[in-house]
Amino acid sequence: MNGSNDTLALLENVKSGSITPEEALMKLKTAPFEDIGYAKIDNHRRLRQGAGEVIYGQSKTSGQISGIVSAMLKNGAENILVTRISQETADLLSNFDIEYHPIAKIGVVARKKSQGVGNIVVATGGTSDMPAAEEAAITAEVLGSRVTRLYDVGVAGLHRLLGNIDTLISARVVVAAAGMEGALASVIGGLVDCPVVAVPTSVGYGASFGGVAALLSMLNSCASGVSVVNIDNGFGAGFLANRINLMEGPK
Amino acid sequence: MNGSNDTLALLENVKSGSITPEEALMKLKTAPFEDIGYAKIDNHRRLRQGAGEVIYGQSKTSGQISGIVSAMLKNGAENILVTRISQETADLLSNFDIEYHPIAKIGVVARKKSQGVGNIVVATGGTSDMPAAEEAAITAEVLGSRVTRLYDVGVAGLHRLLGNIDTLISARVVVAAAGMEGALASVIGGLVDCPVVAVPTSVGYGASFGGVAALLSMLNSCASGVSVVNIDNGFGAGFLANRINLMEGPK
Amino acid sequence: MNGSNDTLALLENVKSGSITPEEALMKLKTAPFEDIGYAKIDNHRRLRQGAGEVIYGQSKTSGQISGIVSAMLKNGAENILVTRISQETADLLSNFDIEYHPIAKIGVVARKKSQGVGNIVVATGGTSDMPAAEEAAITAEVLGSRVTRLYDVGVAGLHRLLGNIDTLISARVVVAAAGMEGALASVIGGLVDCPVVAVPTSVGYGASFGGVAALLSMLNSCASGVSVVNIDNGFGAGFLANRINLMEGPK
Amino acid sequence: MNGSNDTLALLENVKSGSITPEEALMKLKTAPFEDIGYAKIDNHRRLRQGAGEVIYGQSKTSGQISGIVSAMLKNGAENILVTRISQETADLLSNFDIEYHPIAKIGVVARKKSQGVGNIVVATGGTSDMPAAEEAAITAEVLGSRVTRLYDVGVAGLHRLLGNIDTLISARVVVAAAGMEGALASVIGGLVDCPVVAVPTSVGYGASFGGVAALLSMLNSCASGVSVVNIDNGFGAGFLANRINLMEGPK
Amino acid sequence: MNGSNDTLALLENVKSGSITPEEALMKLKTAPFEDIGYAKIDNHRRLRQGAGEVIYGQSKTSGQISGIVSAMLKNGAENILVTRISQETADLLSNFDIEYHPIAKIGVVARKKSQGVGNIVVATGGTSDMPAAEEAAITAEVLGSRVTRLYDVGVAGLHRLLGNIDTLISARVVVAAAGMEGALASVIGGLVDCPVVAVPTSVGYGASFGGVAALLSMLNSCASGVSVVNIDNGFGAGFLANRINLMEGPK
Amino acid sequence: MNGSNDTLALLENVKSGSITPEEALMKLKTAPFEDIGYAKIDNHRRLRQGAGEVIYGQSKTSGQISGIVSAMLKNGAENILVTRISQETADLLSNFDIEYHPIAKIGVVARKKSQGVGNIVVATGGTSDMPAAEEAAITAEVLGSRVTRLYDVGVAGLHRLLGNIDTLISARVVVAAAGMEGALASVIGGLVDCPVVAVPTSVGYGASFGGVAALLSMLNSCASGVSVVNIDNGFGAGFLANRINLMEGPK
Amino acid sequence: MNGSNDTLALLENVKSGSITPEEALMKLKTAPFEDIGYAKIDNHRRLRQGAGEVIYGQSKTSGQISGIVSAMLKNGAENILVTRISQETADLLSNFDIEYHPIAKIGVVARKKSQGVGNIVVATGGTSDMPAAEEAAITAEVLGSRVTRLYDVGVAGLHRLLGNIDTLISARVVVAAAGMEGALASVIGGLVDCPVVAVPTSVGYGASFGGVAALLSMLNSCASGVSVVNIDNGFGAGFLANRINLMEGPK
Amino acid sequence: MNGSNDTLALLENVKSGSITPEEALMKLKTAPFEDIGYAKIDNHRRLRQGAGEVIYGQSKTSGQISGIVSAMLKNGAENILVTRISQETADLLSNFDIEYHPIAKIGVVARKKSQGVGNIVVATGGTSDMPAAEEAAITAEVLGSRVTRLYDVGVAGLHRLLGNIDTLISARVVVAAAGMEGALASVIGGLVDCPVVAVPTSVGYGASFGGVAALLSMLNSCASGVSVVNIDNGFGAGFLANRINLMEGPK
Repeated sequence: MNGSNDTLALLENVKSGSITPEEALMKLKTAPFEDIGYAKIDNHRRLRQGAGEVIYGQSKTSGQISGIVSAMLKNGAENILVTRISQETADLLSNFDIEYHPIAKIGVVARKKSQGVGNIVVATGGTSDMPAAEEAAITAEVLGSRVTRLYDVGVAGLHRLLGNIDTLISARVVVAAAGMEGALASVIGGLVDCPVVAVPTSVGYGASFGGVAALLSMLNSCASGVSVVNIDNGFGAGFLANRINLMEGPK
Repeated sequence: MNGSNDTLALLENVKSGSITPEEALMKLKTAPFEDIGYAKIDNHRRLRQGAGEVIYGQSKTSGQISGIVSAMLKNGAENILVTRISQETADLLSNFDIEYHPIAKIGVVARKKSQGVGNIVVATGGTSDMPAAEEAAITAEVLGSRVTRLYDVGVAGLHRLLGNIDTLISARVVVAAAGMEGALASVIGGLVDCPVVAVPTSVGYGASFGGVAALLSMLNSCASGVSVVNIDNGFGAGFLANRINLMEGPK
Repeated sequence: MNGSNDTLALLENVKSGSITPEEALMKLKTAPFEDIGYAKIDNHRRLRQGAGEVIYGQSKTSGQISGIVSAMLKNGAENILVTRISQETADLLSNFDIEYHPIAKIGVVARKKSQGVGNIVVATGGTSDMPAAEEAAITAEVLGSRVTRLYDVGVAGLHRLLGNIDTLISARVVVAAAGMEGALASVIGGLVDCPVVAVPTSVGYGASFGGVAALLSMLNSCASGVSVVNIDNGFGAGFLANRINLMEGPK
Repeated sequence: MNGSNDTLALLENVKSGSITPEEALMKLKTAPFEDIGYAKIDNHRRLRQGAGEVIYGQSKTSGQISGIVSAMLKNGAENILVTRISQETADLLSNFDIEYHPIAKIGVVARKKSQGVGNIVVATGGTSDMPAAEEAAITAEVLGSRVTRLYDVGVAGLHRLLGNIDTLISARVVVAAAGMEGALASVIGGLVDCPVVAVPTSVGYGASFGGVAALLSMLNSCASGVSVVNIDNGFGAGFLANRINLMEGPK
Repeated sequence: MNGSNDTLALLENVKSGSITPEEALMKLKTAPFEDIGYAKIDNHRRLRQGAGEVIYGQSKTSGQISGIVSAMLKNGAENILVTRISQETADLLSNFDIEYHPIAKIGVVARKKSQGVGNIVVATGGTSDMPAAEEAAITAEVLGSRVTRLYDVGVAGLHRLLGNIDTLISARVVVAAAGMEGALASVIGGLVDCPVVAVPTSVGYGASFGGVAALLSMLNSCASGVSVVNIDNGFGAGFLANRINLMEGPK
Repeated sequence: MNGSNDTLALLENVKSGSITPEEALMKLKTAPFEDIGYAKIDNHRRLRQGAGEVIYGQSKTSGQISGIVSAMLKNGAENILVTRISQETADLLSNFDIEYHPIAKIGVVARKKSQGVGNIVVATGGTSDMPAAEEAAITAEVLGSRVTRLYDVGVAGLHRLLGNIDTLISARVVVAAAGMEGALASVIGGLVDCPVVAVPTSVGYGASFGGVAALLSMLNSCASGVSVVNIDNGFGAGFLANRINLMEGPK
Repeated sequence: MNGSNDTLALLENVKSGSITPEEALMKLKTAPFEDIGYAKIDNHRRLRQGAGEVIYGQSKTSGQISGIVSAMLKNGAENILVTRISQETADLLSNFDIEYHPIAKIGVVARKKSQGVGNIVVATGGTSDMPAAEEAAITAEVLGSRVTRLYDVGVAGLHRLLGNIDTLISARVVVAAAGMEGALASVIGGLVDCPVVAVPTSVGYGASFGGVAALLSMLNSCASGVSVVNIDNGFGAGFLANRINLMEGPK
Repeated sequence: MNGSNDTLALLENVKSGSITPEEALMKLKTAPFEDIGYAKIDNHRRLRQGAGEVIYGQSKTSGQISGIVSAMLKNGAENILVTRISQETADLLSNFDIEYHPIAKIGVVARKKSQGVGNIVVATGGTSDMPAAEEAAITAEVLGSRVTRLYDVGVAGLHRLLGNIDTLISARVVVAAAGMEGALASVIGGLVDCPVVAVPTSVGYGASFGGVAALLSMLNSCASGVSVVNIDNGFGAGFLANRINLMEGPK
């Protein structure tokens, strides 16, 4: 269920008699996650996907988060990301070694600082796009990337973007977060030769429809090399940017 | 009904006895338009609004168009615009002195060429936006403006736009026509100091939703000085651009 | 990056040796804006676009606004518009010479009163449309225009509009703000011969969908000469109306 | 099942023994409609609702229509309306005494002309709205009303409407059909004191979204006394207008 | 501006010299409404439309409402409807002779009770639809109609509706208010032979989209004789139902 | 009105003279529900539909709920479900024998516990989907089914679902509740051979549009045997799943 | 991957040495489907889900369909359903033993007629809903159910539905197909005590939005026991109804 | 305008006198593209972005395409992609050395075959998703990547996907193309540890809304590492996947 190699290894063990078929079935069913009632914790994810499970905190109580964090720590997890939590929730988790980022609303438990590698540029159209941008930047930093912030470079004052073009073209991946008309992603997409992860933000009013205008704008980008994540999904953009940034070259 | 001055003049005439009250009422009711059954032709519009009535050809038969054109010619109209007609319809109107523009799908009857005044720049994101752009350009030219075309300068290749910046900044009004993500309007809006009339076009596919993505993008433009007309409404943009372009300075 | 003339002047200086190429590049990059961390202030905008940068206050803290205002004042800015701020935020900015308009929710710092020129008529369908209308009116007044207000003249009582027709036809530009069915823009568009900037407002309930009904109505106006800005975007309408109103005639 | 009086009468007959309970049940089940396989014809509707069943022709074959018409004629029906049929379908029904109206796309079988009573005014914004308007007008005429047509009186040329105000105020009911921004319904609603049935039409392009803009505009009408039917539903408007027009006064 | 007869009378007076042309123009402009700054009160509406102006209270301060009510009372108005006001606002208006209806959120100032004429049945699908239904019922009662309430007769328990069929068929007009799937209007529309005014309500959750599901359902009613007003627009339904109910028969 | 058999029985009684026709009509009208003013209680529903009326508590006051519960208890009802009520409302109903479930927000009055029959599996994509899932589970349990909960088995960690496949394939009906992309229903639908009732939940943000993304995903499921209820409609899913689960085999 | 029992059996075989681990892995990967290039045929589905794979013909060439049918026949498949194919495609498949149903647009290859068991009632609002209804009916019949058709019983003529109430209440499952306002599902849902599968159809025009109005109506049904499939998805409804109809009682 | 290095080099040349300032300005404006009237060809793009300009053929005539291709060939371009052209258009371009792919509707002019590097897996939910998938695959192959196709592995038959898990986990990038509910992207996203580019396709009907259901599903994916391109945008997905696949590791 989690890669042919695992299955094959399991089958070899069955054949050698080191485990019984019944035990193997049990293993297939129970190994990869721990069931704590309200959640099934995927301890196996770091092996399968290169990064541990992340706790989406928005709709969980501090009690639930606390339980999941404890179970993960018991399994030796580090750099546990808890996204979309308020300062209040972070305070309730202060018995853990938690680092809280108020703009991004991210908590990091058991953070193990490391010098980031590669280079991700996180750019925003305006100051108001910073929550999504910081969520992306901190996620990528915690997962191992070096991040350069380039904020308030929206297209209404193009020289602000062009004046930073050497920063842009030094990136291995660009995260472009913008609300309103979301044109930033297209303009950056036309200037760089690396992947651009576009994050529409809910900044705006009226016919921005909570980020839909920016979302559609980014999906229809006339520049190649641009892909899009959900509105305000800074975490998803940072996670993906980190994954691309850390890639080794093809063999 | 059409300006206090007219009403006042009419009332003066009633008082002076030069017309009876019944005649005045009749005049109020019948003067400004001619009823030819399927249409009420607004011969008065040039006086009231500075440009004669325009025939929206899309949902009219060539017979109906022909009838309206005849009635207008009889009233001395010139430069009669017939928008959204096919080559076939234009051919059926060839008994008139008609000039047909196939990309814009506009016919002009009894065109009286004049040297345009001022300067309107009509810009497009791509080649595919030309129908709306040409509709705008020809409308403005027929109504008296000088027009400069600047096509295929979309933001995915920003240098194409920046390389023409002196053309842009020479404009009194810019019409920016673009489909897909419609970012052109915002980028131009940030570069010039004149009014920008944005025309979203239906160019694109998928989540462009027939021009909605470009429309929303333009409505949410972070650049000031940008306003928007309906999707593919090149005529409206050209009409408005001309009206602004021909304005005299404030007293 | 900001007009061919500037670039050419810069290049001439390079040639003459008055600045080095490295200095020129630095100038190209840093001159037009000041980076204060959370914002890049576009001090150059007045030159490039005829009006100084405006502070969109909605998603900024009073601290951020204060920092931007200070930086602008240091550069000699006057008539600094801060839009969409509450009375509370305005009070927190009282160390500046700020004039606050509660209906429009606009603050003006370092206002330099001047006698407005030209004539912009700002009309509304109802009393409830006043916030957007006042935002437009004050913006235009601060930027230099004379403004005439014509409120509560919605089409359900047409005589209220027709009774003010001489006011309407005296306008160089009309701003028409209306919610619900937004018919005001079309009716005014059919009566005047100047540009009409339509502002859909979020006034209404049910199938008004927060201003979408008025927005669509205005985009589909059967009257020529009408263009549209975002829902409740009084600032944009006032800025554009002022730009048109102040235009000199074509040469 | 169809009114207490009918049920009571049936029960009286059961009591008197003139029919058995089994017969009564059978009657309750089978009387009000005739089952011809692909359709259950509601011969009872004229009694129950004051007008016979109408055949919605759009998705029916000429064979199916023919079968239904025959069954209705056999029951003595007159003035059978067959809506939304093409000229071709009408030709295939020429063995019946059918009168076909090509603009409205309505056929009337066994028409019994009568002098209409009351007065319904059917108004349109433009020439293109005539199909819906004619569908309404003919429906109302066939059902017994007198109809006055007032076409091409859209709000972009308000004097065309105001010049016909005495026609408008003579109406017992007004049907207002308009596409694009649909402002006609609101303007008429503000001028008359009778019920206004608004018909949004699919005339327009781009952000008219096939009549949605007009529909929303009409639903949000700031004028009282206006109600709305489906896009292009001229039949529904004509049916309802006729029903209102023929009403006797309250006792 | 308000009917040819008025205009003709005015012109006669000009001719006879009883008023000057200037006075006539002034009269045309100022007579029909009173301008109190934030509102233009349409004192003429009762003459023109058969019912006095109604105050839509939702977005007005109690001060503004108070001002408008005072001006109307000064003009002799009775039965002044103030819709969509809270108990708190009503309390602030207690210096007037106001009758407040908390479910409908309507206040009636200077109510002059009368025995209603005709018969309007107001039906709802459920208990939750009562606010819209009561708004309709009280509006119609104040304007002169007799109203019968028939609440909680939704189609999920059809016998509740069928058991009241004699009430339904006694109506001159039915107002059908329902949320969720809004099927009530169609079912009633198939049972009665009088006009049905359908009011979609915002009752429901999820894919009811705040009343959109019911709105679309009602617009697509397969029953004839049904028309629709805006979501939760009980006032509009009651106003229209009253207008129809009070109609005299055709001459 | 409630099945031919009832009607036939009634008619037989009329014939035999055991009741008069007038009495029969009265019976047809009044028997199946009790009218307590703001509600018409459908006491007959358990006979007609196999389960008693359920009280949708969301938009009712505790007083209204109390009145309805009392009337139902008087009629001998048991297991009365009151859905969508807060803890506060439940407390106000504590004079009844009420069992409150805070996650599901359901109260059950006069619960008569029974050993459930059959097997319904209620699965969720994540912890956040538990409110809808519990609403379904408790509804089904109260109505007589045995329920197995399988929570937090979303497709992002497929092994959590596959590891529980024997639970899934033991179900007679599966209720699949998921927000965000709602893929759970399709994946389960491809694994089991029993009916799957999909419940889209409003869990998510941005382009989840309050559950619309999950709703559309589920409606377009490429797996057969899946049907869908409204967003967050756990009650509806549980009611339907119970109905299917309790079915006897075909004869 | 296809049930714990299969996996367990496979593991037992590995242990006993009857197959090698490599062979087992190969078996896990290749057994359940046949790869013919453009499709992977799921021969295993009948075992896993109780019904063989169905060919969705709409977007496949007759060549592709022919290839899939041949591969399935080779595996001994019977009653192969090919949905959404035109008469032309059916003719191109005439080398197979194919039975074509033109209204449902379904072909059945190698049909093995059987006497259906249980009872599914398929009801429609109108004649135009027959394509979806027939798709459901034939699907269910081919899969083994007995089907009763009840067409043209829409709620605008309620007596047509009530007159057939004994047919309705005899059903084990009802499929309710309706377009326009889709009220049929709610009304039937209130009358029967068995599961109702609602099929919104694309019948209608204007604000029916291709079936969206009916879809929303059905999702918001106030009647319990109703679930919904995609617009026009007669196949899905028939498949699900058959699955429910054939269920044995709980143990 | 295209990177600081270029600008700096240019300035150096000005200083050294090797070009005049006027020449430099001219160079800034004209160098990067060739203006052939209807298009401005971006010959510079390969340098700036690592891949030459691609011709979006959909809305261009074969004459326009021919002109652009000729201009590009003259500049030494190879592997010129012409997307979204029909067989007919491809035939009209046969004077070039064009290779046409009918499923993908892509033409490649002057293709220079190379052994692809890395590994991109392109997976589809069904056979019908092949057009978008092939557009992606061929784009990536032409640009230099090795591509593995994995078609018809939709989640309704999960074993088809799981049986190919070793192919999936060998990928450096996965392109997941699916219509209907688009669950494929989430399921793959949960299984692999490389970037997943999701392509919603317009395959489906009814509430798939031309790919919107799949688009929303993919944007809301609960799996990390997934980003999305426009509906049916196989080219964009292939271009981006190639860009990621060819990345060298971070230094």
